[in-house]
Amino acid sequence: MIRVACLQLAPVLGDVAGNVERARAAIRAAVADGAHIVVLPELATSGYLFTDAAEARRAALAPEDPLLATWAAEAGRGDAVVVGGFCELGDDGLLYNSAVVMDGSGVRAVYRKTHLWDREKLLFSPGTARPPVVDAPYGRIGVLICYDLEFPEMPRALALRGADLLAVPTNWPVVPRPDGEHPPEVVAAMAAARANRVFIACCDRSGTERGERWTRGSAVVDTCGWVRAACDEENGRATADLDLNEARAKRLTALSHALADRRPELYADLLSDAPPQPSP
Amino acid sequence: MIRVACLQLAPVLGDVAGNVERARAAIRAAVADGAHIVVLPELATSGYLFTDAAEARRAALAPEDPLLATWAAEAGRGDAVVVGGFCELGDDGLLYNSAVVMDGSGVRAVYRKTHLWDREKLLFSPGTARPPVVDAPYGRIGVLICYDLEFPEMPRALALRGADLLAVPTNWPVVPRPDGEHPPEVVAAMAAARANRVFIACCDRSGTERGERWTRGSAVVDTCGWVRAACDEENGRATADLDLNEARAKRLTALSHALADRRPELYADLLSDAPPQPSP
Repeated sequence: MIRVACLQLAPVLGDVAGNVERARAAIRAAVADGAHIVVLPELATSGYLFTDAAEARRAALAPEDPLLATWAAEAGRGDAVVVGGFCELGDDGLLYNSAVVMDGSGVRAVYRKTHLWDREKLLFSPGTARPPVVDAPYGRIGVLICYDLEFPEMPRALALRGADLLAVPTNWPVVPRPDGEHPPEVVAAMAAARANRVFIACCDRSGTERGERWTRGSAVVDTCGWVRAACDEENGRATADLDLNEARAKRLTALSHALADRRPELYADLLSDAPPQPSP
Repeated sequence: MIRVACLQLAPVLGDVAGNVERARAAIRAAVADGAHIVVLPELATSGYLFTDAAEARRAALAPEDPLLATWAAEAGRGDAVVVGGFCELGDDGLLYNSAVVMDGSGVRAVYRKTHLWDREKLLFSPGTARPPVVDAPYGRIGVLICYDLEFPEMPRALALRGADLLAVPTNWPVVPRPDGEHPPEVVAAMAAARANRVFIACCDRSGTERGERWTRGSAVVDTCGWVRAACDEENGRATADLDLNEARAKRLTALSHALADRRPELYADLLSDAPPQPSP
């Protein structure tokens, strides 16, 4: 069994040093509590609601920044892996909404969000590479960021590449939902986890920023699609103990198999087509 | 607004004439109550738990069978469309787990289930054609059958082909679920509806057959992924009034669009690969 912890922090817009330090302290506490995989929110270093690209640029870090290295040092105290969102200043000079994967050895991977949501398109460049699948001692960790998860192609592709657990830094603004329902993004995670027989750990944020509130919907979902741990508290933590080997069991019955039962010859061409141009 | 009704019938194994007649009477009642789209369970004519292919063959019908034509006649009383599962004897002599789409003019389309579940593989041949998208006066109806819906590629492909509502005849055997949760298949429908901004009407069955019970989980899901109507009663009916135009609104914000935001260049090749051979 391994322990997964989603740290539902409340980043302060533009306070990069403070955000990194508060995250570092939270990582230390989670690792001390036995966490093997620690997930932070999207843009945990910077906050989210930038007015313009110039403001985002002032809050951007390179993946090798010594500030982020403090997270790796905390991971190294416990043989843990940290997956956290940050505002990236790329080596190409562009801004990205990214996630870094770190362990005691330093940066293992950087993922640049593929599907930018709404005004993010005005601030960031979209990623042009597939998300990473990082080999950790206890399993293979795939990475997505927030809106990425709403494209079922993404968790499917990561499952086909062998990911056991998807770590998903998110910032989910509050949207209405019927009484008794999970947040819609959690429903998407539940369905994706079950369809692909993978674990999914979504780390949402808390706090209020320029009037915006977030769902505080962090959730760890198992391979049957059920929520093992959730947290709706400010600065709370969703923690679950998981057997990642369950994600290697894609066979559903003697004759059914979650991945081998696909019939790509009947739909893959449709999924390959260029997206339709949206009507105005 | 149009009215969608899922008729959660309880087919009796092998009683084809009786099953068709009970479904006909239920269609009549639903159409009299104003239903425009009537969905029946999977294998509504035959029941599900065949011991072997010979037993299934004895319960099979051609799509043009006069028994099924009685459904079309009932649809014609109200300008309705009926989508119902039946055990098909194909013109090629093979057995299929199929759905027929009928209106007052007769058979509009026949769909042969693409993804066969478990022992269905011993009884039926898998379909080799894409599911239909049928133009009705009030919108475009796509068709899937049960396990098909658990492959996110299927609703995605139907949405890309312009379907507004997916009619999904199902037989969902009872599986455990945590208190307060929807059946897992409904969670899959909720996520698929929201990801693709389509309506989904799943018609489950009721009754008991050779000791097996079904979920009785019929549900009509809207384009935001919420359950508009559900029914857990024996021989009950889930009815919802829907504005199918909502399914034409794929734009989520001024800058975001459910289909145009896809990035197929980053995953379509993975989704096209032949399925992995399952390990024994």
